[in-house]
Amino acid sequence: MSLYPASFEKLTDHLRRLPGIGAKSAQRMAFWFLSLSDSEAEEFADAIVEAKHSLRRCSVCQNLTDEEVCGICSSMKRDRRKICVVSEPRDVIALERSREYDGVYHVLHGVISPLRHVGPDDLTVKELLARMDGSVEEVIMATNPDAEGEATAMYLSRLLKPLGVKVTRIAYGIPVGANLEFADDATLFRALEGRREI
Amino acid sequence: MSLYPASFEKLTDHLRRLPGIGAKSAQRMAFWFLSLSDSEAEEFADAIVEAKHSLRRCSVCQNLTDEEVCGICSSMKRDRRKICVVSEPRDVIALERSREYDGVYHVLHGVISPLRHVGPDDLTVKELLARMDGSVEEVIMATNPDAEGEATAMYLSRLLKPLGVKVTRIAYGIPVGANLEFADDATLFRALEGRREI
Repeated sequence: MSLYPASFEKLTDHLRRLPGIGAKSAQRMAFWFLSLSDSEAEEFADAIVEAKHSLRRCSVCQNLTDEEVCGICSSMKRDRRKICVVSEPRDVIALERSREYDGVYHVLHGVISPLRHVGPDDLTVKELLARMDGSVEEVIMATNPDAEGEATAMYLSRLLKPLGVKVTRIAYGIPVGANLEFADDATLFRALEGRREI
Repeated sequence: MSLYPASFEKLTDHLRRLPGIGAKSAQRMAFWFLSLSDSEAEEFADAIVEAKHSLRRCSVCQNLTDEEVCGICSSMKRDRRKICVVSEPRDVIALERSREYDGVYHVLHGVISPLRHVGPDDLTVKELLARMDGSVEEVIMATNPDAEGEATAMYLSRLLKPLGVKVTRIAYGIPVGANLEFADDATLFRALEGRREI
């Protein structure tokens, strides 16, 4: 027998589906919702629906946007000859924070993962290939340096190279500020391998 | 400059207000919402609004309910001569889990806390006193065994005793300073069993 009213249980069930949220946190959140005023709760609910309705993928780079073409793709300051390929919109934000990159992006919305049944057709590979109109000089693979990110980068480079475009991969190495002592063997190996003259 | 679209930022800002949720978790949740279908997101939003609109306080015990009188108060199996006073609806659930108690409840919706400017008038004290119609034989104080819960129990016992009702306090089977909500069933059982008159 459930001791909470049905609508409370229903809200808790929904909240439990949120990533990283268990039964206790969901209940705590449900009580928090009840402590809001009616209008505050409605605003919260509206924000969910509004985000779902207004957000779409940029028709060029497939990044998240509420316009037809995103701010980066429509900016006159960006170098359209360089495309940086990332798996998720959050990776664009991470790279933008570095203030180093002045090219444009392409968001794959995932990585190739046979285990999770994600193939190239589930990603925005077709849209990436469609951008190779001869004006693009370099495609930088900035997928995560794990098995799936690596495989995705390799797969794409094999598709892109025959089109006469230079394909590069972001460097592996020790993170800035990290401790050599705690770096894993694979990272140290890559860091040594990729050493440069100073 | 914010790099995410405005409606995404707005959703993230709302999610950050949830208890226990920081910037990173809020962003992760916002992306999760975008991965839902439109109808799933709408259902989620509806659950918030619906819970807010349909939930009210039981006119007898002030517990959370979607009816005029809650399931426990309207049950013929419950002993109306015993009222167990708790601070929050979640405490009712915790006590019900112990399967030891067959009386009814009264939910204060808080504890007296001068520091947080919560006085007796902010709680359902008036409603509790209104229930003392001569048929009630015992009022069990089951507020948390911390300073504020203790003070609230003492305050209420001073109001109730002159009305000729027996006032008891749940036993310190619960570790002092702990939270009723997280107590295990056996501890709650002992706490109810060992209650003493105050």
